[in-house]
Amino acid sequence: QIDSARLWGTIHETAKFGATPKGGVRRLTLGPEDKQVRDWFRNACEAAGLEVHVDALGSMFGLRKGRDMSKAPVGLGSHLDTQPTGGKYDGVLGTLAALEVVRTLNDAGIETETPICICNWTNEEGSRFAPAMMASAAYVGDFTTDDILSRKDAEGVTVAQALDSIGYRGDAPVGRQKFSGFVELHIEQGPILEAENKTIGVVDSGQGVLWYDGKIIGFESHAGSTPMPLRRDALATLSEIVLAMESIAKKHGPKAVGTVGEAVIANPSRNVIPGEIAFTVDCRSADAAIMDALDRDLRAAIAEIAVRRKVEVQFDLIWRKPPTHFDARLVDAVENAAKMLGYSHRRITSGAGHDACNLNTVMPAAMVFVPCKDGISHNELEDATQADCAAGANVLMHTVLALAGV
Amino acid sequence: QIDSARLWGTIHETAKFGATPKGGVRRLTLGPEDKQVRDWFRNACEAAGLEVHVDALGSMFGLRKGRDMSKAPVGLGSHLDTQPTGGKYDGVLGTLAALEVVRTLNDAGIETETPICICNWTNEEGSRFAPAMMASAAYVGDFTTDDILSRKDAEGVTVAQALDSIGYRGDAPVGRQKFSGFVELHIEQGPILEAENKTIGVVDSGQGVLWYDGKIIGFESHAGSTPMPLRRDALATLSEIVLAMESIAKKHGPKAVGTVGEAVIANPSRNVIPGEIAFTVDCRSADAAIMDALDRDLRAAIAEIAVRRKVEVQFDLIWRKPPTHFDARLVDAVENAAKMLGYSHRRITSGAGHDACNLNTVMPAAMVFVPCKDGISHNELEDATQADCAAGANVLMHTVLALAGV
Ligand SMILES: NC(=O)NCCC(=O)O
Ligand SMILES: NC(=O)NCCC(=O)O
Repeated sequence: QIDSARLWGTIHETAKFGATPKGGVRRLTLGPEDKQVRDWFRNACEAAGLEVHVDALGSMFGLRKGRDMSKAPVGLGSHLDTQPTGGKYDGVLGTLAALEVVRTLNDAGIETETPICICNWTNEEGSRFAPAMMASAAYVGDFTTDDILSRKDAEGVTVAQALDSIGYRGDAPVGRQKFSGFVELHIEQGPILEAENKTIGVVDSGQGVLWYDGKIIGFESHAGSTPMPLRRDALATLSEIVLAMESIAKKHGPKAVGTVGEAVIANPSRNVIPGEIAFTVDCRSADAAIMDALDRDLRAAIAEIAVRRKVEVQFDLIWRKPPTHFDARLVDAVENAAKMLGYSHRRITSGAGHDACNLNTVMPAAMVFVPCKDGISHNELEDATQADCAAGANVLMHTVLALAGV
Repeated sequence: QIDSARLWGTIHETAKFGATPKGGVRRLTLGPEDKQVRDWFRNACEAAGLEVHVDALGSMFGLRKGRDMSKAPVGLGSHLDTQPTGGKYDGVLGTLAALEVVRTLNDAGIETETPICICNWTNEEGSRFAPAMMASAAYVGDFTTDDILSRKDAEGVTVAQALDSIGYRGDAPVGRQKFSGFVELHIEQGPILEAENKTIGVVDSGQGVLWYDGKIIGFESHAGSTPMPLRRDALATLSEIVLAMESIAKKHGPKAVGTVGEAVIANPSRNVIPGEIAFTVDCRSADAAIMDALDRDLRAAIAEIAVRRKVEVQFDLIWRKPPTHFDARLVDAVENAAKMLGYSHRRITSGAGHDACNLNTVMPAAMVFVPCKDGISHNELEDATQADCAAGANVLMHTVLALAGV
């Protein structure tokens, strides 16, 4: 059993790096608060006897030796960056639980056959730089390191500049650290476990993701003197697109979601009809055929709206992550650990994307979920209980021990 | 006849203060470019022999003596501030045509009975600070000077600070400069004169204006893991409000317009359902009863949307300007001048608000419109012909001469 109070203590200790007045965390990837938590994490890893290295995209790896150093380590961990108005658990729980597993094994003097390696992946959130799970995507070869290094945030700062500015552009080539498998603990970020009163989610699959960048080019004109029928209003156009996305997602029932998360009017003014708007769309399903249908329906809706409103709409798919089917053997290992420890559990699909979803494309991977209050995440009110966090960390540890061998 | 080439020259000379790459002007009120054009205008007024003074809200007055200095001057002019992506004519034409009238009278050695006074009113546009026509509204007593001085822009800078920063907080109390009447020349900013091939619009009325500040408080949550039916999406809510405003305005036929010009998502992120949005609404009609109906219908629509979507919508009327009915005698004077000069003309309602609409509540006022290309205004592409600008300036001059007496 891991030390529940110690795990809880580290979660609340690191929550001060970027703490917000409403009790959440604002720790955008590669910003100053991210440097603070990274420094803390590196020190904690070194204090726990781990050999720490950083790769060219800033992902951090802490290696605990095993009896057989010829074997690739079992990986565990998650991420320490947050949303602009994020919570204390998303990513943090999985990363600090990995540290807690190491501390527990150290205290108990347990040596594993295979080494184990705890990870903090760079920019899982995808809020400052797109796409989400950026570093693990490069790790598995979905993008080149150079491509990712050149991605820009809204202020035009590149990933390379941001890494250098906090001193976390490491020497290790991306992908050099190999793993025999990867296990990630995370809060569910959805309402199912809490509603069904289950402690552990045995994650067997994950939704695919479509991310789009959009731009509407209408025509600026005077809000008072331009008759309604002559308008080419970019915001009215966006409004129709937002509602179309909503009804298309609803049409596919519980198996799809769709969101417009960002929308910025160029040169806004109270008495000017908006002429140009940049926006983004996120839509998802665990079913690849539904993903295709979402894409098709949305494009058709946008085309119809654009013609009818006499505006130009640019709409580009910038990221497509297919649905994930986690490794059956590792999913069973998670389920067995939950059973062995006596926790109530159920199989579950991840609504969110995770680094484990990327890693699963090149190695066996699986995930452990624990409930979060009202299913709320990406919100400063995100909450989880100490007991559930500890339960998840125990399942994580026993899954890792089963894979690494004692 | 005014000097058409000289008027055209000053319009293009001053268009360099805040010139944009697309051929428009960005000269937000009380910003550095506004200081440049104000300095230019002051010098030009002094060179034309006018006595210049500035009031406590930065409005500029240039007095040309008349034979009978016991009489209040006839006022003429407009404004030199622009929208963020404004054009070269909105406000500028009326202010520089007033200067051109003075220059023409000087050159011809014409003395008037009553003095005349040319004006540049502060913050007509209402884009940086609300409301629009701010200084003339204070002039007529709709707001106190102190109230207006404390208004803030989006960065929190007050009108007082902005005035001080460019050295245009004058000594004269607001309202001290009296007028016997006021005439304003302006581009139409709408499509009617051009469509009907008329050179002069004799403005007999103006739309009333309702300005609102709105805020939607929904709930931020994860775009991937939050099921569609559980969302409280602030952007989907705004989208319904935008489309409701549009259809309510259309329902009232050609006699109403409604626009959402600004909308800002708090802490936007691609994979976060928007939780909070601030927005503004501008709606107008020349008919007071329709204005009341717009207000009622919009509030009812918002209330229904808010309840259905389980979000909070704050919606505050921050400005109500009733419809304008210009002084019959001055409207006739404008019409007579147009007739006398042989220009095609028609009576017209102003879609936009103007300082003359405020001034009309305490003195006889009227306006002269000239066509602008495709009715486009509040856009960098705003355009007008030299001939139409000159025609408008001639009508302005002859109206003023009729009022001031030769
Ligand atoms: N787990 C999580 O919130 N990841 C962020 C990436 C996404 O799914 O949008
Ligand atoms: N004339 C003009 O564009 N005024 C700005 C104020 C408004 O009508 O919105």
